[in-house]
Amino acid sequence: MDTTGKKTIILFSGDFDRAMAAFIIANGAAAMGDEVVMFFTFWGLNLLRKPEKVETKDKKSTLQAMFGKMMPKGTGHLGLSKMNFAGAGAPMMKKVMKDAGAMSLEDLVDSAREQGVKFIACTLSMDILGFKEEELIDGLEFAGVAAYLGEADEANVNLFI
Amino acid sequence: MDTTGKKTIILFSGDFDRAMAAFIIANGAAAMGDEVVMFFTFWGLNLLRKPEKVETKDKKSTLQAMFGKMMPKGTGHLGLSKMNFAGAGAPMMKKVMKDAGAMSLEDLVDSAREQGVKFIACTLSMDILGFKEEELIDGLEFAGVAAYLGEADEANVNLFI
Amino acid sequence: MDTTGKKTIILFSGDFDRAMAAFIIANGAAAMGDEVVMFFTFWGLNLLRKPEKVETKDKKSTLQAMFGKMMPKGTGHLGLSKMNFAGAGAPMMKKVMKDAGAMSLEDLVDSAREQGVKFIACTLSMDILGFKEEELIDGLEFAGVAAYLGEADEANVNLFI
Repeated sequence: MDTTGKKTIILFSGDFDRAMAAFIIANGAAAMGDEVVMFFTFWGLNLLRKPEKVETKDKKSTLQAMFGKMMPKGTGHLGLSKMNFAGAGAPMMKKVMKDAGAMSLEDLVDSAREQGVKFIACTLSMDILGFKEEELIDGLEFAGVAAYLGEADEANVNLFI
Repeated sequence: MDTTGKKTIILFSGDFDRAMAAFIIANGAAAMGDEVVMFFTFWGLNLLRKPEKVETKDKKSTLQAMFGKMMPKGTGHLGLSKMNFAGAGAPMMKKVMKDAGAMSLEDLVDSAREQGVKFIACTLSMDILGFKEEELIDGLEFAGVAAYLGEADEANVNLFI
Repeated sequence: MDTTGKKTIILFSGDFDRAMAAFIIANGAAAMGDEVVMFFTFWGLNLLRKPEKVETKDKKSTLQAMFGKMMPKGTGHLGLSKMNFAGAGAPMMKKVMKDAGAMSLEDLVDSAREQGVKFIACTLSMDILGFKEEELIDGLEFAGVAAYLGEADEANVNLFI
């Protein structure tokens, strides 16, 4: 089977810089005509959270509610993996990105979706962290590791970021 | 050569959350019938350490003894890569995992071994960090990067975690 | 196409320990006769910086100059991803490496180049961080994500470190 037409990326990290790298690769591959699948797990799920508070039907545990409160909602408040400077690093990085004419993370996410990149939210991580489907952005697929492995078997580049 | 029946994972990280991700993937692939090889290097070696203190035949250097003392022994005391809260993060994560009915890291390691996942301990990292074979859990293979590359050449998914 | 003769590594991290892992794999693969391509992006670019201050033709923004000053120049001053001990961790790690007879990071970089490993500096990251070609070591290629993907399509092991 020719697998060069497909790429998968596990986005485990919720760091701004690592998410940027993941989306630049995803967009690049999609622009070259490849099918791209992104599998969001653990901290990476934070990127998929709606920025506003959502009332969930099912209750969360106290710890889940606490994790949910302390972790960033969406792409707007992610920190840097290095030189975060107590939160000042990411805004500075965004400024140099903008000055350099680079796409913002928000634009990269939008572009990835427009190009048909498939977003899969890891259901096991959702169960653990207490994230409900209605708290995450629209248009996602929800699946577990078996789905990821099925996608990866059809791809030739499989990255863990 | 059809390589879809084999996966390799380099576990470089000794973080609880990254180790969880690695073992969930390894178990998932093994459950689907794939051969899985995990190559433990650098901080990832900590997962393979016996929890008790082991007298080693060969002496360690002062620095090696110090690294050995400061790093976690086995899967029980790993920290989170994010939101570690001075060590409180991992117990909280374990609690939400348990509440969600997810397998513990210990169970995932046991399950991986029962499913025949091959564990290779990186001998170069062992030499550097001063880890002796008798300090690590039983049933490991000991090898270097050449062995890893040989395994990876037979696999279609090769992740660095 | 047989892709087992080629490997690619994205070095995103600028941590000493992760860079060590990347170069050990790169050297191992090259020694086994594989073509190896390393793509340096984000913090990984720091490894390619000349250790001395270089006057650049094009001006940098204030933020770029600040990032440039705060980030390590070359392989000599990288920190550890864990147990960095305010900078003392890396020298201690280098000491145990030397005692164990392991190659230094500098030797690994030199060896990689002598073995023909291709170094590509990510031009988008350079634009963002304000790194100019004359500030980086000689013998690099300069390219973007499309070049990386082209290389990866010819390889069977593609790691993100």
